[in-house]
Amino acid sequence: MKTTSSSVLLGHVQGIPIKIHWSFLLILGYVAFINVRAGADTPQVIWALVFVLAIFACVVLHELGHALTALYYGIHTRSITLYPIGGIAALEKIPEKPIQELAVTLAGPLVNVVLGILFWLLASWLTPQGIDLENASLTISPSTFLINLAAVNLLLAVFNLIPAFPMDGGRVLRSVLAMAIGRLKATQIAMIVGQILAVIFIFKGFMGNPFLILIGAFVFFGAAQEYNSVRYTSVLSLHQVRDALMTRFTLLSLDTTLAQVRELILSGAEKEFVVVDHTGRPVGIFTRDLLIAHLSNQPEDTTVGQCYKPSNLTLSPDQSMEEAYRLMHEHQIPIAPVLENNTITAVINTENIMEYLMLTEGGEE
Amino acid sequence: MKTTSSSVLLGHVQGIPIKIHWSFLLILGYVAFINVRAGADTPQVIWALVFVLAIFACVVLHELGHALTALYYGIHTRSITLYPIGGIAALEKIPEKPIQELAVTLAGPLVNVVLGILFWLLASWLTPQGIDLENASLTISPSTFLINLAAVNLLLAVFNLIPAFPMDGGRVLRSVLAMAIGRLKATQIAMIVGQILAVIFIFKGFMGNPFLILIGAFVFFGAAQEYNSVRYTSVLSLHQVRDALMTRFTLLSLDTTLAQVRELILSGAEKEFVVVDHTGRPVGIFTRDLLIAHLSNQPEDTTVGQCYKPSNLTLSPDQSMEEAYRLMHEHQIPIAPVLENNTITAVINTENIMEYLMLTEGGEE
Repeated sequence: MKTTSSSVLLGHVQGIPIKIHWSFLLILGYVAFINVRAGADTPQVIWALVFVLAIFACVVLHELGHALTALYYGIHTRSITLYPIGGIAALEKIPEKPIQELAVTLAGPLVNVVLGILFWLLASWLTPQGIDLENASLTISPSTFLINLAAVNLLLAVFNLIPAFPMDGGRVLRSVLAMAIGRLKATQIAMIVGQILAVIFIFKGFMGNPFLILIGAFVFFGAAQEYNSVRYTSVLSLHQVRDALMTRFTLLSLDTTLAQVRELILSGAEKEFVVVDHTGRPVGIFTRDLLIAHLSNQPEDTTVGQCYKPSNLTLSPDQSMEEAYRLMHEHQIPIAPVLENNTITAVINTENIMEYLMLTEGGEE
Repeated sequence: MKTTSSSVLLGHVQGIPIKIHWSFLLILGYVAFINVRAGADTPQVIWALVFVLAIFACVVLHELGHALTALYYGIHTRSITLYPIGGIAALEKIPEKPIQELAVTLAGPLVNVVLGILFWLLASWLTPQGIDLENASLTISPSTFLINLAAVNLLLAVFNLIPAFPMDGGRVLRSVLAMAIGRLKATQIAMIVGQILAVIFIFKGFMGNPFLILIGAFVFFGAAQEYNSVRYTSVLSLHQVRDALMTRFTLLSLDTTLAQVRELILSGAEKEFVVVDHTGRPVGIFTRDLLIAHLSNQPEDTTVGQCYKPSNLTLSPDQSMEEAYRLMHEHQIPIAPVLENNTITAVINTENIMEYLMLTEGGEE
């Protein structure tokens, strides 16, 4: 949710939206600032900024390495977003076979290795007198641009392969472990290794590199979050939709007005609704967030039929809760109707599934 | 919520719990680490750690300066918590008169000024040959301890008075502006000034002081959060409880079992309930969080009567929504019964109030 509103869409590759987070502007400002402060002239500052943009283009290619390999296994990528500390490819799901996860993960750093070699060869070809590594300058200029870009790509490959889950190297560790001891236990070990490395990153960061602090925080919380997600999934697979059914619910018809939905939401605790057509067949969903968005620019007598989110996802009480949660996630809907004999007998929402988990895990402890 | 679970209680002063956040341990580890790395011997490391603890004792006294001045105006402080970037005194509310807020705010830095002078005098008295400021060492040893502590206290006073709302200096700015243009507008201006300074802090931080980055982030988000809170309060004061009543709700009786509450929560959207005795009189509340906490160590047939949260707060439909929100915040309950002619005709919860705000503000835009 937050990603969408604070990022700018750059374009699409194979249907995958490539976005850039606003905070990326801070990096450009920062690079310009330290260069100007160090006494650089205007061409030097511009070269430095172009260099930063070139690095981030390489990061996009790294993420496309993940995304296109995932696509080969039939897994779509929701988006690729660039942050100041790197890129994130939001895959719709993690490949089920560890060997496939391994391939998807390694594809990213491999892109950087290939780019590094290419830029190195190009730099060698453009400077026939040979590259003077001894006196190579860290200042970016037309003559040092390519060789520095080659070096950064090789550094990116190496850095990403540090086994700090959820960084690439940590994912490699997880998928290799998963082949031997299963995904849940493998993720737990990868999380612990990742969090230990994150603390080391943060300490190192306080010695002078603030980016390492941000990366450390990302690794520390990311590792725990992914472990929890895997843990929930494995618990959810043991239960069925029938265990967490919401039997007290309100259905919305297509001709309900926004004013009526507003009244309904304010007078009770429900926030998300299944929308049905005049035959009682589910056609989509409507939520408080949609209501807020539409009330800001549409009259109160607009009907749900004009602005609901269509969805053909229906669930059965016999499905596993893990499958239900995954399908709702893939369809990007927080609530879904549960059908028995073609009739909606209940609904289930993601909050209720999490609620069920909390109550089940809490009760088992 | 998070504060309670991740902080350790040190003790009470005037009934105010003094807590220390776990991340504070990282600071001690960090200080020990950089000293050892710089070749310090064991006594030097111990002196450095004692010095850090002394600084944080001064920070506690700074926060007590705020808290005890607030108490003088009849405002209690929920807790004082120490974080690596400073202390936070969680006042139950902000004084209504700007002049009182000014006094409460200035009391903190004033404590540091007084402490600075005291330590300076003590250091002078203990070194009759005079303090050699020219050759003063930054290494902490018995002979430099007091003079360095004096210097840190004066620095703390000056740093806290930088007008970066919600830091003390920003609160001074807000309260002075509030006397002229009202609290809402004053907070908005203080927020903007604070956020500009926060960006400068963060930039400066990236030049080598990571603590400034953390403080910058705290100021940036803290400023926006406090402004929103003031804005919400001023919008809420325009509306009445009757506007956001929940008329579809479930009451719990004292002999409802935890198993029954579990079923009720899972089968519907309600998460918080008003508890009534056998005469129908409201006696307290029960929530999903309480259910999870109790299910983990009590049998399912435990009754709500054995573990509900007592509360005698009742609201009337004619009260302002701002007052209702403030009272629920002060009683620390997320839901309250609304009475007409001594009968519960509705309930209202904080989520519904926020929902009403979102829908009202969204509709007005």
